[in-house]
Parts: sequence; structure tokens; C-alpha cells
Amino acid sequence: MRQATIIGCGPAGISTAIYLKRSNIDCLVIGKDFGALKDYPKTIENYYGFKDPISGNALISGGIDQAKRLGIEVITDDVIALFDRGSFFEIKTKSDTFTSKTVILATGKVRLTLDVPGFRTYKGKGVSMCAACDGYFYKKKKLAVIGSGAYMQNELNYLKRLTDDITVFTNGDTLTDTLDLPVIFEPLKALIGDQKVTHIETHLNKYPVDGVFLAIGAPSSLEFASQLGVIVEKGNVSVDENYQTNIPGLFAAGDIIGGKLQIAKAVYDGMNTADSVIKYLKLQTT
Amino acid sequence: MRQATIIGCGPAGISTAIYLKRSNIDCLVIGKDFGALKDYPKTIENYYGFKDPISGNALISGGIDQAKRLGIEVITDDVIALFDRGSFFEIKTKSDTFTSKTVILATGKVRLTLDVPGFRTYKGKGVSMCAACDGYFYKKKKLAVIGSGAYMQNELNYLKRLTDDITVFTNGDTLTDTLDLPVIFEPLKALIGDQKVTHIETHLNKYPVDGVFLAIGAPSSLEFASQLGVIVEKGNVSVDENYQTNIPGLFAAGDIIGGKLQIAKAVYDGMNTADSVIKYLKLQTT
Repeated sequence: MRQATIIGCGPAGISTAIYLKRSNIDCLVIGKDFGALKDYPKTIENYYGFKDPISGNALISGGIDQAKRLGIEVITDDVIALFDRGSFFEIKTKSDTFTSKTVILATGKVRLTLDVPGFRTYKGKGVSMCAACDGYFYKKKKLAVIGSGAYMQNELNYLKRLTDDITVFTNGDTLTDTLDLPVIFEPLKALIGDQKVTHIETHLNKYPVDGVFLAIGAPSSLEFASQLGVIVEKGNVSVDENYQTNIPGLFAAGDIIGGKLQIAKAVYDGMNTADSVIKYLKLQTT
Repeated sequence: MRQATIIGCGPAGISTAIYLKRSNIDCLVIGKDFGALKDYPKTIENYYGFKDPISGNALISGGIDQAKRLGIEVITDDVIALFDRGSFFEIKTKSDTFTSKTVILATGKVRLTLDVPGFRTYKGKGVSMCAACDGYFYKKKKLAVIGSGAYMQNELNYLKRLTDDITVFTNGDTLTDTLDLPVIFEPLKALIGDQKVTHIETHLNKYPVDGVFLAIGAPSSLEFASQLGVIVEKGNVSVDENYQTNIPGLFAAGDIIGGKLQIAKAVYDGMNTADSVIKYLKLQTT
């Protein structure tokens, strides 16, 4: 059982880890990619301390190296599900499962999205980002799950309990595992409908659907937050003055909680979140 | 007449300047020396983004170079007086006088000091001024904490997580609260050692130590601010949520306003202070 697990390896996540480590709290950082700063086209000039402009990639990898040098474990993996087990959390990644007394969401704000006409129109109108949140509304309905990896599999396992009429759309990708249900490999052309989504259109066909679940790549913290019933307001995870969500032991820092989307603010969040995590852990052991 | 003049060239001052400049506000930075980070004996490991430990001097001069590269004027001079001229401020330095619509105090805090032989010798050699910075190096060691008030208690709470062998030395002062660990009330005579501090000597005894943490309440270095009637509480310049003091147009950021004495916090302060200065200047011109 770990004391703290941080999901996200950007400024907020690594800063939290560094301050935890300095207080003798070992933590695990699980990073998926470089988040909002990945391939950031301009160099960064307004984060204090760097004489010369620095690229987003260089800053992020510098931060990861800094954490590793301090003895912090940083792994690259996709977190595909997060479970609240009462007194601890279970973090399921593509290749492993971890348990931890606290979890810090610091994945930034990159959300799952689908670059296909109709996605924005029907998001929330038959197009869902979270099986655990919305699956209930689609019992015995005709569903499409868009995705091809571990996260798709995870969402599929959930939805299979609700209906046996599910088709997987890989949007041109290959599958790592074979599936015992219909799979459409054609790239998607559009989501179409009227009040709600009614069809998925590829270049070859139109497929009727009652609901569409998006499960491409890996979910962002906002998806985990939704799975756990975390309060999200205007796209930001709600936290109290201690950076704690409405779920005890679950914290959030950086862009995901809103405010200024600046490195300086994410780093500051991380420093403060570490303090709150330390206080929380102390209360658990007394 | 300048729009903004920043007194102090550390993380808070330079970060304010960078964010002002990015909003097209020209400002002058007057730096006296490198403040709390000057000759900081250990390298900095907990400020996000630096793969390798960085010295205080390197960080500060990197920040100054960063500002200059962005076209910000940074001069080295002693501010000896600051006058409120109603609609503007007059800043008198050793060698010049400037006028400015706004002034940002970012001089940091004069660090704690102890008037006992051996203090200067062993500062940075087993004698630390900051539990959060250096406590990590003293896990399970025999520590002394010098102080008697709220600040000592604060440092003590931090260090207690790392070791249970702590003695408090009040240096002749009384305690406001009782403590559940050994307390020595005898006035200090000297700090002694060889390469590093090894003992605290009083007139009665020599006490062996692995490390000493100084936690005496520190007065702020704000003689010129005091001239203006700035409200100072417990050694910190009081500011509102916009980082403005009780004097319109006079702002403060970084260590001088209290809170965590950390670079991450000073940089965050600077970012926010710049926003407030911009809003203030806009109101003046409309």
C-alpha cells in the first residue's frame, strides 16, 4: 500500500511529488504523456528562473528527471480506472494495479475528444465519456464503443453487464486483443442524429446506435473524477482550500482545478497539495 | 514617471516584472543583493523544472538574465527611502531618485540570525534556518531547535516527522506553551564543532547535536515601508487579496508578505501581483 499516488507528470504532479519526498513521504507518479505542454509550439519565457526560453518538452522532462534524481518513482503508463475502496484507492493501469492511501489528480485538462463532425453536437446527447457514469441509461440498448486499447476494454467490460448489443468502432486502429463481439475498423466520418445521436457514419456505412461511448487512448482526470462522483464545476474539479475533492483522500492540483493555466500556479498548487496530503496521512495514522 | 517599480530582484520581484512585461507594462527592478538565496549554502532541489540542483546565486542571476533578455531594466542599487507623493511614489536610492505610479515590495525577509559565537561559522554546516528546506537531511538524527515562539513550534512540528530526538533551546526565553520534549532554558554561549556543528554550549553544559535549526521570530527588513505607515503584522507586510498594502498603489509579494518561504510561492505571488498592478494602472487612466 502506497502513501500517495500522483496521476500526471507535469508541473503540478511533479511539484507535489518533490514536496512529499522532502517530507519523507514516498510516492508514485504515473505519467501518461506530457499533457498541455507537450509539443507546446512556443517556448516558455514566463516561468521564473530560466535564463533562456525553454520548450514545453524540455521543461517537463527536466521536471521528471529532477524527481527521479530525488528518488521518486516515476512510471509511464495509462491509468484506465480509479476505484474508491473506502480506506484506500485502487489505481488500475494498462499493465498493473496499485493501491494507495491518497491519490492526487494532476493530469491537466486535456480531455478525451474525437475529431469527427457531430462529436461536439451530440456530446451529452447520446455520446458519453464515461460508462460508469452513464451506462445505466442504456440498459438493453444498442451501443457503440469507440476505442481500441485497454481503456476501451475497461469500458466495454462495464457496459457488457447492461446490454449485449455492443459494437466496437476502432476508428481505423488495430486491436491488441480479439473481441467476442462485432468490430468495425473503418475510420469514422461523422456522428449523425437529430435531438440525439442516431447513427455512426463511416465512409462505407451508416450504423444505427442508441448510445455512443468514447474510450480512445486513456481517460483524463476529469473522467476518473466523474467515475468516482467527484464534483466537477464548469469543467474544473472542485477542491476545498486543502486541494481535497469531496472524496476524502482524493486531491487535485494544477490546470484541472481551474484558475490561471500557468506553470507558476501549477507548481504552487503542487507545493500546497503536498502539505495537505501530509496532514491527511497524519490524521489517518493517529 | 514609470508605471511600476519593483524593489527586489529575487523570485517574487522578477516574476512580477516578467508578467508585467508580457502585458506590455514597462517596469524598473531595483535589486540590492540576492536576498535570502544569496550564498545559500545548499543547492536548491525543490523548485520545479531544474533537473540538477541549482545554487541560490545561479537561480537568482538566471532570473535577472531572463528579465533582461525580455527587455526589463534591472539595476543594482540600495533603496534608502520611499515616499508616497499622493498620486505617485518617489524612490530614493543611494545614487538616484525615481518616480513611479506603483511600487512593488519584493525584498524578501532579513533572515534569522543568532548573536552567538559559532553561528556564522556553522551556518549551512549543520546549522539550518529552514526545517522544510533542510530537515530532509536529518532523518533520525539528534536535533536542536532554537526558539521559543510560534515559529519554533512550526519548525518543530515539521521536524518531529523526521526524528524523535529533538531538544528545544529557548536561549533564556520562556515558553508560551508546554512542550512534550526536552527543553533547555539556559542562555546559549556558543555553537561548537569542527567541520560541522557538533555541540551547543551553554554556561552550564555542552549538548551534543547532529543538527541545529534556528527558529527565532524574524523581523522584516522594511524600514522604508514603515516610513509610509504600511501595516506589518508579525513581521509580515499585510496585503489584501490583490497583494496591495493599505497604501493604494503599493504592493508586496514573496517572503515579505509571509506564508511559505518558498520559491514556488514567491513566483506565484509575482504572477498574481502583476495582474493586480495592471488592474490598478488601468483604473488610474480611466
